[in-house]
Amino acid sequence: MIVVMKPGATQKQIDHVVELIEDLGLKSHIIQGTDRTVVAALGEKRDGAKQALETGDGVEKVMPILAPYKMASTEVKKEPTCVEVLKLKVGAGKIGVIAGPCSVESREQILEVARAVREAGATALRGGAFKPRTSPYSFQGLKEKGLQLLAEARDATGLAIVTEVMAPEHVSLLAQYTDIMQVGARNMQNYPLLEAVGESGKPVLLKRGPSATMDEFLLAAEYILKTGNANVMLCERGIRTFEDHTRFTLPLATVPYLHQTTHLPVVVDPSHGTGKASLVTPMAVASIAAGADGLIIEVHPNPEKAMSDGYQSLTPAAFREMMAECRKIATALGKKM
Amino acid sequence: MIVVMKPGATQKQIDHVVELIEDLGLKSHIIQGTDRTVVAALGEKRDGAKQALETGDGVEKVMPILAPYKMASTEVKKEPTCVEVLKLKVGAGKIGVIAGPCSVESREQILEVARAVREAGATALRGGAFKPRTSPYSFQGLKEKGLQLLAEARDATGLAIVTEVMAPEHVSLLAQYTDIMQVGARNMQNYPLLEAVGESGKPVLLKRGPSATMDEFLLAAEYILKTGNANVMLCERGIRTFEDHTRFTLPLATVPYLHQTTHLPVVVDPSHGTGKASLVTPMAVASIAAGADGLIIEVHPNPEKAMSDGYQSLTPAAFREMMAECRKIATALGKKM
Amino acid sequence: MIVVMKPGATQKQIDHVVELIEDLGLKSHIIQGTDRTVVAALGEKRDGAKQALETGDGVEKVMPILAPYKMASTEVKKEPTCVEVLKLKVGAGKIGVIAGPCSVESREQILEVARAVREAGATALRGGAFKPRTSPYSFQGLKEKGLQLLAEARDATGLAIVTEVMAPEHVSLLAQYTDIMQVGARNMQNYPLLEAVGESGKPVLLKRGPSATMDEFLLAAEYILKTGNANVMLCERGIRTFEDHTRFTLPLATVPYLHQTTHLPVVVDPSHGTGKASLVTPMAVASIAAGADGLIIEVHPNPEKAMSDGYQSLTPAAFREMMAECRKIATALGKKM
Amino acid sequence: MIVVMKPGATQKQIDHVVELIEDLGLKSHIIQGTDRTVVAALGEKRDGAKQALETGDGVEKVMPILAPYKMASTEVKKEPTCVEVLKLKVGAGKIGVIAGPCSVESREQILEVARAVREAGATALRGGAFKPRTSPYSFQGLKEKGLQLLAEARDATGLAIVTEVMAPEHVSLLAQYTDIMQVGARNMQNYPLLEAVGESGKPVLLKRGPSATMDEFLLAAEYILKTGNANVMLCERGIRTFEDHTRFTLPLATVPYLHQTTHLPVVVDPSHGTGKASLVTPMAVASIAAGADGLIIEVHPNPEKAMSDGYQSLTPAAFREMMAECRKIATALGKKM
Repeated sequence: MIVVMKPGATQKQIDHVVELIEDLGLKSHIIQGTDRTVVAALGEKRDGAKQALETGDGVEKVMPILAPYKMASTEVKKEPTCVEVLKLKVGAGKIGVIAGPCSVESREQILEVARAVREAGATALRGGAFKPRTSPYSFQGLKEKGLQLLAEARDATGLAIVTEVMAPEHVSLLAQYTDIMQVGARNMQNYPLLEAVGESGKPVLLKRGPSATMDEFLLAAEYILKTGNANVMLCERGIRTFEDHTRFTLPLATVPYLHQTTHLPVVVDPSHGTGKASLVTPMAVASIAAGADGLIIEVHPNPEKAMSDGYQSLTPAAFREMMAECRKIATALGKKM
Repeated sequence: MIVVMKPGATQKQIDHVVELIEDLGLKSHIIQGTDRTVVAALGEKRDGAKQALETGDGVEKVMPILAPYKMASTEVKKEPTCVEVLKLKVGAGKIGVIAGPCSVESREQILEVARAVREAGATALRGGAFKPRTSPYSFQGLKEKGLQLLAEARDATGLAIVTEVMAPEHVSLLAQYTDIMQVGARNMQNYPLLEAVGESGKPVLLKRGPSATMDEFLLAAEYILKTGNANVMLCERGIRTFEDHTRFTLPLATVPYLHQTTHLPVVVDPSHGTGKASLVTPMAVASIAAGADGLIIEVHPNPEKAMSDGYQSLTPAAFREMMAECRKIATALGKKM
Repeated sequence: MIVVMKPGATQKQIDHVVELIEDLGLKSHIIQGTDRTVVAALGEKRDGAKQALETGDGVEKVMPILAPYKMASTEVKKEPTCVEVLKLKVGAGKIGVIAGPCSVESREQILEVARAVREAGATALRGGAFKPRTSPYSFQGLKEKGLQLLAEARDATGLAIVTEVMAPEHVSLLAQYTDIMQVGARNMQNYPLLEAVGESGKPVLLKRGPSATMDEFLLAAEYILKTGNANVMLCERGIRTFEDHTRFTLPLATVPYLHQTTHLPVVVDPSHGTGKASLVTPMAVASIAAGADGLIIEVHPNPEKAMSDGYQSLTPAAFREMMAECRKIATALGKKM
Repeated sequence: MIVVMKPGATQKQIDHVVELIEDLGLKSHIIQGTDRTVVAALGEKRDGAKQALETGDGVEKVMPILAPYKMASTEVKKEPTCVEVLKLKVGAGKIGVIAGPCSVESREQILEVARAVREAGATALRGGAFKPRTSPYSFQGLKEKGLQLLAEARDATGLAIVTEVMAPEHVSLLAQYTDIMQVGARNMQNYPLLEAVGESGKPVLLKRGPSATMDEFLLAAEYILKTGNANVMLCERGIRTFEDHTRFTLPLATVPYLHQTTHLPVVVDPSHGTGKASLVTPMAVASIAAGADGLIIEVHPNPEKAMSDGYQSLTPAAFREMMAECRKIATALGKKM
């Protein structure tokens, strides 16, 4: 850490900072500048050290140097991680596509979608059974019945199942049915949930919170990795900004940034990221071009009858076309999709 | 709802929208404008209706008319709600102050702070026992031991206890010790948690998520109110924006806006809202002037030794001065604090 | 417009709104809902009408229906516009690339870059002569000398010249040298400047302001179009959000959204949009995949000696590789680049 | 500046950074940490130095230490500046109130408002003559005629005149009529305009751009101060965020933050900052409590007939009440208003 003193900081204040640094088990190193003094604090990062130093008299600011996450970092593991579940492969040059309805609504619906997306080339099926909804008056999902239908769809098609888990106490139930646990954007910093899905041993699709920084996102992944579960996929699904012509703002620079920072694979969700069916295909194509390792796409046989998110769902026919466009890009870039 | 058709929408498309509206059990009403047609859908709001209509061919957008929350609304209950717990009174003209450390660290620390803040005029004590931390490598709180210390501090001082609950499975444990359940900003949309704290029957301090809109905030409160628990305090603690000179951006217009919209009391947290001890007092004073029904303030006997959030904590002496400034404003406005 | 009355609005308030609407030369149409009354105002949009109605007693909100821009809209002109200057073609299926240094620094520098980017396939040269700089203490550009060097580079290479204009009184000077006038992000709503560049008759590259909505962006273009100058290129260069791992957040959904809304071509600037050389190529490739009609890229022969923006500039070699990657995508999508 | 090297940076890369630092005329100082090396660059800040260092091989990031503004800083001048024009006094313990309509519309309107606001205690009159409007189809102001009417209102009431200047070529015309030049939010980074108003010698009210950081805001002020014009008032008028229940988000922490950073006085504009007449008074009161040195408020005799911004304008009666509330706070805090 670098402790920047205020201009005019007294020698006594500087001595006090040096003392604080040494109390923290770190080594101090004073640098006398033309306008002000800077004190470097060297050694293993200590929890709370930054905060302790920030409160010192005469201190203007404290600047950390090390990235706060460890196990997710390319500094720890250089080769990219590939998450594999049944036929789904995400990462290390493989592009996997997860598709399906926002919510599981009925046996017919989920089986119809599952067949349609498999035929178009998806290798995993998404579908909500426990639905977090902004309003308590909205449809909350079919719950366990929905999980059973998802499992039936897997048996019928071979697709891996991805479904959202909302609470630690649901983890063991979901683990009986799903192949991949999805942690939703609203729960990105629900730490007891992150630990519980980590301990389930199932691969995890972790969605970025709509106002999470990259450090916060990677530290959320770290909660899962710390349980010993290495199969984490990071999912960019859009952030909240002042833009109002799309539901969220989808920042694709996340993809190359994470590839330079972490070994974990990166999936993009252009359905939530745009909130408009007409923008999903161009952004799916752009995601592949930006280097995404996977896509998660909402598909519904009849979007206008969907119980949730119809306005951002593709029809099976539109999804087929999206896949064809994406494959052109993947092929052009020498990737397997 | 108002369904706006695209310019040049065909009669067939309009007829289809009318049919969709009637399928939803609503009445339709066509308005022919100079450039385009608009169809009003009248009747009780139906879940998913907006989404169903948005996917109609030829539809440009659908604009809802009713506020989505009900029990929180001043349309349902006109008189302001006052939440009372021991000596803490928040709302309906009464201003309550909750103060204390970010984390409970030791018996000495919590008792010292409790006494200091009570003397200065606080009527409730905050203190984290289960701490949600961005990094898994940070101090996570004293857990049950921390709760016992809080209870001891209440016995010693008469202050009501406010502490954060992180997971539904902790609710019954916390309910044995705390007077008020705090739901943190990261968990504002953790719906199983909202339901569990609602069912505990304890008053709830609900913090706004850093990227939550007012509708989302009020709908989160609605999850609690729906369990029959009417004692909800809404807490503005800052939102995430591009500003980087403060930890968050503290939008005080939230206070009068909520007073015009809901009967629930509004508490402001200038400690998290600014993230800088030197800004806490002016923003506390401004909050009272804006009409806040309460404040929640981080106070630590020795901020530079705090295990968390030291940089935004007031010393007991600074807190006393803050209270004196706030009281001047409350008195000038004819309020009781 | 749709005027939504508050619940419980009186007949007198409704009558007053009807009267206001008719005073504005619009026709009114009352719709009686279950909870509240809505009044539609039909006819040509009148300036200030929305505001006048919003202040009516008993009015909750007023929702406009028509897009506020006209000449930029696909409702007015359906075929996409192609801007052509010398060999640069942008729009209607043609992809043009503008490249060059942030600032013109010397004769050698600009000629070297011009040759390098032409060889790699760029058809226009960017370079700042009048530089808007956040700090008055930063390098402000070579001014007229810079313009002369740009013109010399055009003569030597055949590249069209793009340079920024900062004030109406500079327009006639710039018009002697440049082929395309760039309006920078800071000046997107500098209306006297928009009118002056419009009247110059030169094609315009209009950059989006970092907090401009799509409506504001298109209305800024409208200021130029209204002068009779139809050659406007819209440039997405990133918006300001809470993200801090990139200089700005680059929202590529702008590209398909604008293609569905306006006939004007859309150029992307991944250099400013990311602020990091290592992210420029993936985002350039993604822009082409999203359908961009053009790119504008900062290239410097020696980024670490650049007088501005070195950290986001590509070397000529990196630019060549970027062009190769982009061409793969353009070819895969059947486009000419 | 502190140059942080990547982990594993080679000795050659470190040597190169040291060389770059010395080429810039700065002194280097190497600090060997446990995980990585850090190089401090000491001496006067040199333009472009940060950027040059950021592009060095093996460099992870460069962290500046000094604030980039100088003349605005409390490091240069400790005593607060008070701007005085006729009876308006803003700063150094004096609170001044500027009030009036968004646009000058007619002789009757401006005289009526001027008298009303003077009676209620305002000491300056605002009113737009040259109006920057988002849409080219909106009312653009009465131009010189408007200026004449403002001057007439000053003669009749003694109020100082504040009006917006949109382009450098208008400065000399405006200087004949107005007492204070307002630079609008859209023009905060219009540098030729900042220099022109600075050179006019008139006091300046500089509005914060809706996505400007504090550093950018203060550097814009620096452009004016650098011309030798010391009479600059900084105006917080709201920033653009995801919030949609207010027109902008009004971050009052700006007030104490600027007071700790600069000697310039700080004015708040709750009319634009909220965009809703019903929120203006509580936020005006809160601004005074936060320490604002001035307010600028939109007042119109008949808001629903206003040609612009009617929805956020107070009636003269509401303005009188606002003044009474604000005075209570000012008195309680021992200030003169």
